[in-house]
Amino acid sequence: MEPRPPGCPAPAEPGPRVLGLRGADPAASASSSSGAGAEAEAGRRVPAVAVVLPAGGSGERMGVPTPKQFCPILERPLISHTLQALERAYWIKDIIVAVTGENMETTKAIIQRYQHKRVSLVEAGVTRHRSIFSGLKALAEDQPDSKLSKPEVVIIHDAVRPFVEEDILLKVVTAAKEHGAAGAIRPLVSTVISPSTDGCLDHSLDRARHRASEMPQAFLFDVIYEAYQQCSDYDLDFGTECLQLALKYCHIKAKLVEGSPDLWKVTYKRDLYAAESIIKERVSQQICLVMNTKEDEDHVGYRLEEMLKNELNHFKVTSGALHHDGTDLQQIILEQCYNFVCVNVVTSDFKETQKLLNVLEDCNLSILYPIVVISVHFLDYKLLPFGQKMENLMQIREFAKEVKKRNILLCGLLIYYPQDDQKLQESLRQGATIIAALIKERNPGLIGQLLVA
Amino acid sequence: MEPRPPGCPAPAEPGPRVLGLRGADPAASASSSSGAGAEAEAGRRVPAVAVVLPAGGSGERMGVPTPKQFCPILERPLISHTLQALERAYWIKDIIVAVTGENMETTKAIIQRYQHKRVSLVEAGVTRHRSIFSGLKALAEDQPDSKLSKPEVVIIHDAVRPFVEEDILLKVVTAAKEHGAAGAIRPLVSTVISPSTDGCLDHSLDRARHRASEMPQAFLFDVIYEAYQQCSDYDLDFGTECLQLALKYCHIKAKLVEGSPDLWKVTYKRDLYAAESIIKERVSQQICLVMNTKEDEDHVGYRLEEMLKNELNHFKVTSGALHHDGTDLQQIILEQCYNFVCVNVVTSDFKETQKLLNVLEDCNLSILYPIVVISVHFLDYKLLPFGQKMENLMQIREFAKEVKKRNILLCGLLIYYPQDDQKLQESLRQGATIIAALIKERNPGLIGQLLVA
Repeated sequence: MEPRPPGCPAPAEPGPRVLGLRGADPAASASSSSGAGAEAEAGRRVPAVAVVLPAGGSGERMGVPTPKQFCPILERPLISHTLQALERAYWIKDIIVAVTGENMETTKAIIQRYQHKRVSLVEAGVTRHRSIFSGLKALAEDQPDSKLSKPEVVIIHDAVRPFVEEDILLKVVTAAKEHGAAGAIRPLVSTVISPSTDGCLDHSLDRARHRASEMPQAFLFDVIYEAYQQCSDYDLDFGTECLQLALKYCHIKAKLVEGSPDLWKVTYKRDLYAAESIIKERVSQQICLVMNTKEDEDHVGYRLEEMLKNELNHFKVTSGALHHDGTDLQQIILEQCYNFVCVNVVTSDFKETQKLLNVLEDCNLSILYPIVVISVHFLDYKLLPFGQKMENLMQIREFAKEVKKRNILLCGLLIYYPQDDQKLQESLRQGATIIAALIKERNPGLIGQLLVA
Repeated sequence: MEPRPPGCPAPAEPGPRVLGLRGADPAASASSSSGAGAEAEAGRRVPAVAVVLPAGGSGERMGVPTPKQFCPILERPLISHTLQALERAYWIKDIIVAVTGENMETTKAIIQRYQHKRVSLVEAGVTRHRSIFSGLKALAEDQPDSKLSKPEVVIIHDAVRPFVEEDILLKVVTAAKEHGAAGAIRPLVSTVISPSTDGCLDHSLDRARHRASEMPQAFLFDVIYEAYQQCSDYDLDFGTECLQLALKYCHIKAKLVEGSPDLWKVTYKRDLYAAESIIKERVSQQICLVMNTKEDEDHVGYRLEEMLKNELNHFKVTSGALHHDGTDLQQIILEQCYNFVCVNVVTSDFKETQKLLNVLEDCNLSILYPIVVISVHFLDYKLLPFGQKMENLMQIREFAKEVKKRNILLCGLLIYYPQDDQKLQESLRQGATIIAALIKERNPGLIGQLLVA
């Protein structure tokens, strides 16, 4: 991955226009499509909720020097992806992130750059439990200059579980309100065994009768705060399970809620790879074709659209025309589409693509994910020889460098336009393959290239 | 990923020349570099060893219709990667794979296509334990037409754990010989809890006193076979842990051996993503530059090599010249390098690249992984205008289609060659970035493209 240019300007707008919307978010999985219903329910019944997010870990298991919560996923730190997931639940009032002193400034910069709202920072303790306790104290104490207030329910989550859905957040909150405590669980992947002191098998546990305790968990604030105030230094230094503290010190038996596989914790380097692939897949699912239909006598733009629909059956392909003010694209951009194909049937310039780029730059959508823009042109030998057309189009390199600063990845695609219909079909098919490759990989190393189909 | 063309011919050679070698294998991680020592040790002490590999799973947790052991990783089924990992241990005599009747033909085809040796198939049972039992029976029974013989030690592994190292295989075998049974373990990632019947927390387990039981495991053959013969239908249908059977029926306390994080089991779709990323990273680590030094007055080939070394510090960059018989490349190919950059300083044809492709096609290396070949050319305006040079080089598309059938991914790269030294340096840097992008992504959708730096 290329490092982001140091001079990358902060967006002028106070926030991405899309952040406050309740539209489909491509980074949320299919299961969150019931979000609207869940939110309506939430509006009726959800109590005052805050989140405590311990993020003081050193990432020693990852085998990389950067703590895992700050490792980049599509060039954005993992913790920002997790905050984004939490922000989708509009009913969460405050998010308290516990970070070590040395990472305080980094975290502040991340919050500012990616325009996270409702986030407060506290200093992490030396263990996970001490960090959580710091977060709880910040919520409990009525300090005169603090904007925080004591919530009824507090969610405890992990900075390194970026795929948490609103659905499960709501489930643990609701269960915590009823039972005092609740936590997400998953079936065990491996059998759990207990070793004897000589390093041999003592016994193995029945997999069907045990579960992995995952995050998020939720508690009545008074319950978990009481538990942390009472618990011993040993608990704070060596304990791993908040549900256990509620049981031990407040006699609250937590309700266990079955979670989805997405709740897994980014622990090893392979988990970073998996997270990046999942996010790439999610932001690749929708492609918008922008067409100037007036000059397209043979409807070649529509044929490319059909080809994309047929060849890429995992993608949702939509199309729109580009008016001078970009209004027709607004709806598509509001749906958070991160992939645009600008179809230029005759011209070998970038006027239309430039218009699209202006619209995209204005809407600030690329703050969260890199946007892929592919400027498609056609090579009709009747009009212009190949070499000439290529030279005209090479100025895409300069455009690409410029818009890269705004996290837009621009490539060109020149599609052969033979008279023979079957050959044209073949060109279009290859064009669709290349478009899919560029969108799926989202590789900044290939910006400004002019590919040929 | 593009599907492999149906007409892809099987290699003429009886096996990839590299398979029998003991050289560095890029798909084995750094920790296996001690392989030679381990093997010398193995030669002295390792008993007769066979592997039983249950592969009858349906992959229901993956959420995809293909059972996970047959899901493609870089276009090759996962189980083939696991078999390749086991074959690295030359002292393993037989590998018994248990597959369901419906997957028998698929598995046979995989073994033939990827030229796996020492593999026998048996029919899987309806549970994992029954499949393992089938494998053990095949080894135990002295059937007249069977080439299998009873081993002293048997390793039980998983078809969906492709990253097993020779090192850990040897450790469990050695420990099994001493203790009767041995298994790899890992620290728990999540706390394990025990739910009560009402779905609430009953108690949580002390994470420090428990471990996840992973694979491989190894047993004295007579011990585990005895255990399976004695065990109940309930054990065969609902048990998950072979070590537990050895304990219960033969009173053997298995030795537990700490394994690496690489032992993890491909369970969910995200694990497939992770596996593919890990394998891509491993096969990308070595790049070979092939140069014709005679025509390179300005040493621009060496400057590109230096740039690659400086910019891509995770890569091992080597270089070699191409003699008419390809002998100089033999050593590099024997080290299983999967990335070649053919540097053509003056010519705009593909003669040198064609020679390299011939050598690569002959050596059958691409049976296991796609090989990336980048044909680099330079654009000196004194010699040829841009459009002309581009047109000359467009024939790369036909070459690329042809060699794709042999699993070779060919791209072209045209690097600007300005007089100004600083600008040349900049072109070379961009060239290095593009080379890195192509090698890391290994995307078949981009073959035949001519990129410009």
